[in-house]
Amino acid sequence: MKIARVIGSVVNTIKLDNLHGFKVLWVEPINEKGESCEAAILAVDGVQAGLGSIVLLCQEGISARLVLNSKDAPVDAVIVGVIDSVEVDGKEIIIL
Amino acid sequence: MKIARVIGSVVNTIKLDNLHGFKVLWVEPINEKGESCEAAILAVDGVQAGLGSIVLLCQEGISARLVLNSKDAPVDAVIVGVIDSVEVDGKEIIIL
Amino acid sequence: MKIARVIGSVVNTIKLDNLHGFKVLWVEPINEKGESCEAAILAVDGVQAGLGSIVLLCQEGISARLVLNSKDAPVDAVIVGVIDSVEVDGKEIIIL
Amino acid sequence: MKIARVIGSVVNTIKLDNLHGFKVLWVEPINEKGESCEAAILAVDGVQAGLGSIVLLCQEGISARLVLNSKDAPVDAVIVGVIDSVEVDGKEIIIL
Amino acid sequence: MKIARVIGSVVNTIKLDNLHGFKVLWVEPINEKGESCEAAILAVDGVQAGLGSIVLLCQEGISARLVLNSKDAPVDAVIVGVIDSVEVDGKEIIIL
Repeated sequence: MKIARVIGSVVNTIKLDNLHGFKVLWVEPINEKGESCEAAILAVDGVQAGLGSIVLLCQEGISARLVLNSKDAPVDAVIVGVIDSVEVDGKEIIIL
Repeated sequence: MKIARVIGSVVNTIKLDNLHGFKVLWVEPINEKGESCEAAILAVDGVQAGLGSIVLLCQEGISARLVLNSKDAPVDAVIVGVIDSVEVDGKEIIIL
Repeated sequence: MKIARVIGSVVNTIKLDNLHGFKVLWVEPINEKGESCEAAILAVDGVQAGLGSIVLLCQEGISARLVLNSKDAPVDAVIVGVIDSVEVDGKEIIIL
Repeated sequence: MKIARVIGSVVNTIKLDNLHGFKVLWVEPINEKGESCEAAILAVDGVQAGLGSIVLLCQEGISARLVLNSKDAPVDAVIVGVIDSVEVDGKEIIIL
Repeated sequence: MKIARVIGSVVNTIKLDNLHGFKVLWVEPINEKGESCEAAILAVDGVQAGLGSIVLLCQEGISARLVLNSKDAPVDAVIVGVIDSVEVDGKEIIIL
């Protein structure tokens, strides 16, 4: 998984039936300083994350379908948690 | 998933039987400014996307076979939606 | 999937029984100008591609086993088509 | 798999039920000199690794669920071993 | 798959029961000149490869479990062949 920040959401006008009802968020993986460290990707939302939230991003289709409780959704990434803080070298860090 | 732009399509002369009838598009992942940010890849089309469309790209073989309704198509990526706009930092952005 | 050029083939002296009989090609992913754009990888051949062929490369083990009609071959990539031409921005391009 | 160093752990305040009870560690892949060589990622802990431990990181969801003995945990990486030493070019190296 | 050179092996002191008995090798993917072209990774050994061997590396967990004949080993990469030579542009190349 990766630590990522929610930067936006996607509005689809045409999409497959199996994706209707799911919110797709745009997230950017970040490092321990809160800096973007990889190109932003899209993930379905499993935890009702808000804009700016620091989240736990899981990049596996099987996991995404488990979270959505769907056997046939075509998805490859999902948000599985909202992160409050990270402990690094024994110190608690609040990522903003 | 990734946001991508359709830049072309592929004409195969020899291909496996399990791929016949499926359209293969050439898409380039893009960032929020609409700039290419990764090498272009090929994906089967699940939503009848046109040239220049901004699409939702899913990179998983299981998802691709679900969309094609095929148990034996050898594919690893699929277009699952056409994106109208993206909301970033509370502002709606039309990607062109 | 990716567009790739066949640059060679592999001669194994010791390999697993489940791989015997399959041809392993060395291919390099290329861009629309026909230039190499990523490190070369190995893939089993599903379409009898020749040296120099421009091919459709699928990077998924499940797809590779489907093409080989094998339940137990340890493989993660397969050539699923030979590409004749690509249409980009409405123009047909012959990749050489 | 990759060799990685445990640099921290994650505190989630909101997470999916299927992830409760699992410890999520932050690890950075390293080279034979013990230097970081890739962006840090998150993995569930299968071996009770401590801060600073050099671990064997497996990046596959199926493996992670096997280790957690869970059929429905949405995870894509897991720590499967603590590494004592590595033998390179016939010499034993202690990575610190 | 990738062409890789075996550069070492891993000694684990603590590891999961499902991994006991399997040898874990450290391999670096190489190009046609025999030069390292990617960060080294760990893979279980399916062919009793030795230090310095040029091998066929398969990066898929399902393949690795097929080779190990294990349903529950948490692994994501496996050595499936020892490569004697590679034919590039019609010439046989011995990679050393």
